[in-house]
Amino acid sequence: MDSNQIEQEMKALVNAPHQFSFENGIVITKVERDLCEGELTVGPDSVNPGGYVHGGALVTLADTVAGCCACSRGGDCVTANESFEFLRTAGGPKIFCRAVPRKMGRTLRVIQTELTDSSGRLVASGTFTFFMTA
Amino acid sequence: MDSNQIEQEMKALVNAPHQFSFENGIVITKVERDLCEGELTVGPDSVNPGGYVHGGALVTLADTVAGCCACSRGGDCVTANESFEFLRTAGGPKIFCRAVPRKMGRTLRVIQTELTDSSGRLVASGTFTFFMTA
Amino acid sequence: MDSNQIEQEMKALVNAPHQFSFENGIVITKVERDLCEGELTVGPDSVNPGGYVHGGALVTLADTVAGCCACSRGGDCVTANESFEFLRTAGGPKIFCRAVPRKMGRTLRVIQTELTDSSGRLVASGTFTFFMTA
Amino acid sequence: MDSNQIEQEMKALVNAPHQFSFENGIVITKVERDLCEGELTVGPDSVNPGGYVHGGALVTLADTVAGCCACSRGGDCVTANESFEFLRTAGGPKIFCRAVPRKMGRTLRVIQTELTDSSGRLVASGTFTFFMTA
Repeated sequence: MDSNQIEQEMKALVNAPHQFSFENGIVITKVERDLCEGELTVGPDSVNPGGYVHGGALVTLADTVAGCCACSRGGDCVTANESFEFLRTAGGPKIFCRAVPRKMGRTLRVIQTELTDSSGRLVASGTFTFFMTA
Repeated sequence: MDSNQIEQEMKALVNAPHQFSFENGIVITKVERDLCEGELTVGPDSVNPGGYVHGGALVTLADTVAGCCACSRGGDCVTANESFEFLRTAGGPKIFCRAVPRKMGRTLRVIQTELTDSSGRLVASGTFTFFMTA
Repeated sequence: MDSNQIEQEMKALVNAPHQFSFENGIVITKVERDLCEGELTVGPDSVNPGGYVHGGALVTLADTVAGCCACSRGGDCVTANESFEFLRTAGGPKIFCRAVPRKMGRTLRVIQTELTDSSGRLVASGTFTFFMTA
Repeated sequence: MDSNQIEQEMKALVNAPHQFSFENGIVITKVERDLCEGELTVGPDSVNPGGYVHGGALVTLADTVAGCCACSRGGDCVTANESFEFLRTAGGPKIFCRAVPRKMGRTLRVIQTELTDSSGRLVASGTFTFFMTA
């Protein structure tokens, strides 16, 4: 399966109704070998009690984009664990996430994510470890 | 402010429309000094492509419950960072989260969370560090 | 191989000259199925510029004890990743570590550690994920 | 205090007898504003039972270098927490670490580290959060 096919199949799978990410305004926008991007459109229901984007929405964005990166050479995966740093309060209209590999092992893949807001400020970062199931 | 007042105010704040957590089926069920509990009602939109509860939904539950624990003696906080382990695939009907402190400092508070499914299996755990803003 | 044999073999392997942990005052004191304990004897070379036990010494203790716990049913492992929280400044004469499993999978094992000082105060905690190589 | 003074003072403080890092073969080699580098000279006592550099030695290197980066504009700090990924088994003769900020807040500073071996391979990475005490 070439990269273009992988991108089309992954977008069809993830950018779809009933996906937790999609129902919360998150879509994958780019899948290339070892690079994945996605974005969250901040809505009235994206927030925490402080009025900023909920940390859970940021982690959901990052986990989704990182998982696509882990599978960007093909295969299936589950998230084994992650660490995540909230660097600045985040607002709309959009949050962008970019994911690249630190390690693409046969069984474990480690993906680094960076999240920026619409003005380009780094608002969060996270590292995700995936277990390849296929 | 006594513990009962804190619980009532926190539930009014968090279990409310337009909160990212609440709109995704998450409510706080108990707030005591140094102990907080909450739950996620798994719905058709809670899932990932594998059909299991999305990791982002689990982290959202844990972050929300842990934040209430960090503020369970009063005060306000933001999440500084977290680490999270996905131990088993998770399904419905509900996921339960329990949060207790590892450290309740003046500025930093470290909260441990455990997430179990309806049959009592531990499905995930996470450690959250909060920065107290008030 | 029974638990007692595993304990003896593990102690012979880890509590030995040229091991980074052993040369820094760290020994394994107990290995049972799903439970491992060890301790660091704080010396004049255990410290950081602030005069407290160096974070690296605490992580070395925890990683060593957690690894023994991951292999406490047999097998070999390498650490895949870890998260670690420094809760209080730590001093001597000893630091104790206790490790128990959160998950004992076939390929991945997640171990929780708690570190206490000689007066029983919790000074640090960490979660380690191991990849089983045998 | 200018950058050159900070570098000299920091090296005098860290590259010194009885420091846990120094006694284990670790020195700081460069301190600039928002950039710090250091290295571990792998010795016969740097290893784990597998014969590779012990994870604790790698974390000690990274924590030491990251702490210097956090204080590279002046001030003092303690490590609040960290997450660390072991990407490949590591050997000698040296391990190099480079640390740069993700966030340089007044109270919290988040530093990213990358560790490479003598042939330039990325062997580990970690993210450290520091609490500024001065």
